[in-house]
Amino acid sequence: MKKTVITIGREYGSGGRFIAKEVAKRLGISYYDKELLNKVAEETGFALEFLEDNEKKPTGSLIFDRYSAVASPTLSEQVFIAQSKVIRELAEQESCVLVGRCADYVLREQENCLKVFIYAPMKERVRRAEEFYNIEERNIEGYITKRDKARASYYNYFGVSRWGARESYDLCINSAIGIERCVEMILDAVK
Amino acid sequence: MKKTVITIGREYGSGGRFIAKEVAKRLGISYYDKELLNKVAEETGFALEFLEDNEKKPTGSLIFDRYSAVASPTLSEQVFIAQSKVIRELAEQESCVLVGRCADYVLREQENCLKVFIYAPMKERVRRAEEFYNIEERNIEGYITKRDKARASYYNYFGVSRWGARESYDLCINSAIGIERCVEMILDAVK
Repeated sequence: MKKTVITIGREYGSGGRFIAKEVAKRLGISYYDKELLNKVAEETGFALEFLEDNEKKPTGSLIFDRYSAVASPTLSEQVFIAQSKVIRELAEQESCVLVGRCADYVLREQENCLKVFIYAPMKERVRRAEEFYNIEERNIEGYITKRDKARASYYNYFGVSRWGARESYDLCINSAIGIERCVEMILDAVK
Repeated sequence: MKKTVITIGREYGSGGRFIAKEVAKRLGISYYDKELLNKVAEETGFALEFLEDNEKKPTGSLIFDRYSAVASPTLSEQVFIAQSKVIRELAEQESCVLVGRCADYVLREQENCLKVFIYAPMKERVRRAEEFYNIEERNIEGYITKRDKARASYYNYFGVSRWGARESYDLCINSAIGIERCVEMILDAVK
């Protein structure tokens, strides 16, 4: 049977992770989000906590990172390399849904890989953040924007395409049209 | 019964118009593309050919247009205003699919309006342009880029949002995943 690989990038608070889980459940295939890091930990021998710390911070100082990378890859880059290897192996081995972690970029040459991006208006994301994430920040909009910036910076550091730009994806959905509809559209796209 | 209004913006050669027609057909609702101009002609008394000439050229000189618009709207702006009125009336009266013409921008406050954008990689658009449009240009890529620029310039002149930027739409689909799939996803989104 042909394998189905779906990557899902998402704005913070857009419900992308929830949609991804639901798609995996209905297709009866694996779901990887933080689960990926476990595999990277096995692969590299790094502790999970260490990976979590280093994963999304390629740029304490971008110039310093770039400079030192000439000599040897930074820790973040090593984590990225190990993670990419795990992503490619998973996509080889099994049907799965992969959330975040530049998976669409890593699998850009892979056939039968649907690349999805989920977004939503800020108002909607604030509502979701308040309802589901139990965030105690006063300035939720600011917090959301910061989280997105971190995702974009991680993606744009390693990627050739831009995070969230439609050209990087097969399908971009505004989840404000309904989570269930998003799930159904993704199922349609791979059926 | 609740009305269904779907606006479809598209990159040149992406198959967006074909998808739009198919969606309208399957839903059994009206389809407006150039048909809109007939209604604008009725509304304004302008001849159809005149409208076609003035419709997509707001900017011979942007500065001049803006400058003269302080005194009175330019012809392009008058056409845009008449067109917007027709779009709003149609969306009030009946379920329909509207292609291009900033319809998503005109209907930005309208409820039950699905805003779709169809795009595709250049390679795919060149293939479609050669297969379906019988274009005799030597430099098809250049021709496609020029057509897109005209659409973007028209949209960005009148719109507050950017042409083709996902934030302006509910759903952006890369038609390379298959025309039939695009149609089904749009039907899913409004069902």
